[in-house]
Amino acid sequence: MSEEGITTLNGTMMNGNIELTNGRAHKEGANGFIHIKNPHISNMDEDVLYHFALGTKSHDLKKMFGDVKFVCIGGSPRRMERFAHFLVKELGYNVPSGLALENITNATDRYAMYKVGPVLSVSHGMGVPSVSIMLHEIIKMMFHAGCTDVEFFRIGTSGGLGLKPGTVVVTSEAVDGQGKASQDNLVLGKVVSRPSVLDKDLAERLLQCSMNDDFEVIMGKTMCTDDFYEGQGRLDGAFCDYNEDEKMAYLQDCHNRGVRNIEMESVCFGSMCHHAGIKCAVVCVTLLDRLQGDQVSTPHDVLDSWSQRPMTIVARHIKNRMKTL
Amino acid sequence: MSEEGITTLNGTMMNGNIELTNGRAHKEGANGFIHIKNPHISNMDEDVLYHFALGTKSHDLKKMFGDVKFVCIGGSPRRMERFAHFLVKELGYNVPSGLALENITNATDRYAMYKVGPVLSVSHGMGVPSVSIMLHEIIKMMFHAGCTDVEFFRIGTSGGLGLKPGTVVVTSEAVDGQGKASQDNLVLGKVVSRPSVLDKDLAERLLQCSMNDDFEVIMGKTMCTDDFYEGQGRLDGAFCDYNEDEKMAYLQDCHNRGVRNIEMESVCFGSMCHHAGIKCAVVCVTLLDRLQGDQVSTPHDVLDSWSQRPMTIVARHIKNRMKTL
Repeated sequence: MSEEGITTLNGTMMNGNIELTNGRAHKEGANGFIHIKNPHISNMDEDVLYHFALGTKSHDLKKMFGDVKFVCIGGSPRRMERFAHFLVKELGYNVPSGLALENITNATDRYAMYKVGPVLSVSHGMGVPSVSIMLHEIIKMMFHAGCTDVEFFRIGTSGGLGLKPGTVVVTSEAVDGQGKASQDNLVLGKVVSRPSVLDKDLAERLLQCSMNDDFEVIMGKTMCTDDFYEGQGRLDGAFCDYNEDEKMAYLQDCHNRGVRNIEMESVCFGSMCHHAGIKCAVVCVTLLDRLQGDQVSTPHDVLDSWSQRPMTIVARHIKNRMKTL
Repeated sequence: MSEEGITTLNGTMMNGNIELTNGRAHKEGANGFIHIKNPHISNMDEDVLYHFALGTKSHDLKKMFGDVKFVCIGGSPRRMERFAHFLVKELGYNVPSGLALENITNATDRYAMYKVGPVLSVSHGMGVPSVSIMLHEIIKMMFHAGCTDVEFFRIGTSGGLGLKPGTVVVTSEAVDGQGKASQDNLVLGKVVSRPSVLDKDLAERLLQCSMNDDFEVIMGKTMCTDDFYEGQGRLDGAFCDYNEDEKMAYLQDCHNRGVRNIEMESVCFGSMCHHAGIKCAVVCVTLLDRLQGDQVSTPHDVLDSWSQRPMTIVARHIKNRMKTL
């Protein structure tokens, strides 16, 4: 299958029969291409990736992104910019004199995106809807660019359960506030549920990237919630109808079920990547121990240094894998 | 009730008995104070508003925000900065020589916040979880600052249903993808549902702020979804399991039920403001007619000029109300 046949939307014949999914998706298992489970995309004259201010007519996505092998995402735009600069050093990436990293999506402020060789560093904001928009558009972008064998990583911050603050958790399974490992979406008014599946082998490799660091890296379940306060059993939101004992009973129950940290995107991330046939992993640092309190009162500069830790782990994995590419 | 007694957390005696809610909340009906339906807040030594990088010990919130009467929120930080500058002109706000507007929450990049006299202009990112974190913290902030009679406005962008793109919709009722006017939250693993209620009188006043403009302002229901693509019946996401006819049947059904635009925050906004006893309204411009298509392909500079329209309407209302303060 020629790459031109797959990646060009505008009038180019698609190879293979198009059934529910298009030509490429059917062949994903064999060649590592990204699934697009949407038969309509191939019929579009143009695909505007609105929240990135990019598009198939306005940009040569294949030229811009065809070599991408790693997509690293995290909530904060500043943090993802910092990760890009960190990668420049870690990968020994050559930035020619007179050039500098730039935010590729600077025409909009919905997300920020940086590229360092085969790595994209992209912010996704906070919560499932925000990460979902970003994933729809980046999965389509990878598809249009003809990328193959891409790994996706969420590099985030979280609340820990029974862990020393600053500990890094590699997620074994992402579950919702009721322990379900699936993402429910309302599609045309009906609930559609899709399993959230992270790559076990990738998680193991990331765990092995822990070295003689001044922090621990552990594997555990991650709980994904739609609210930071009541949704995570905090006592310090604008509203709270439960008491300390009820909160602790809930968090202890989560801990007993193997949950080691809490954040707000992992279930959707695992669900969308899995649905698109993309290997993915979640690596988050814990900013506090929720069994000890609710408030994040550690100074921001300390938190910033902790938020470097998942970057360190993922950068080591990227370096390892780049040796084999 | 002295204001000092209400607004200081650190050791100051609270007036009145504290039952489920604290002293102020019980008196809200009478004096226009903000509800905090959380008995724990009064017992806290400090309240760190983590995602704003503000706090009750590190900042004099009463001095900084005690005069706020209007909180205007919208997804994009750049847009909310533009609104702040627009207000400077519209309100004839005196910025002394050598000073400039600054982002109050510059120590973090989760949200952006600007203050122009009695008006706050704050970004909330995309989707319910993101706006929910922001509302928890700003409601607490208004409480700590001792603000009274504050009105909240969401100034946003949306997809229209059967409207000329660029039309402004003042929301009569915010409903979810199944037509429900309530927000479901998972609290300690159980679903808690709270009604989403916008202020009818405020919506009427906003509608009356329409003048001899080159755009229409109408009143209608707003549908709030958790996903931009499948959640809004688009055919152009990374995934799509339905066809054009099924999509159109769904959107037409929404239209028949009075829905005139679609966005991703209104139900939560109406639910949290109502629960806190805050009068609120949603004013969004429509960027396209979803009965005609899915892609937002209008140039960004045109979209930017359209996104000024809800600002114009809300600024007129603020000017009107400031005459009576």
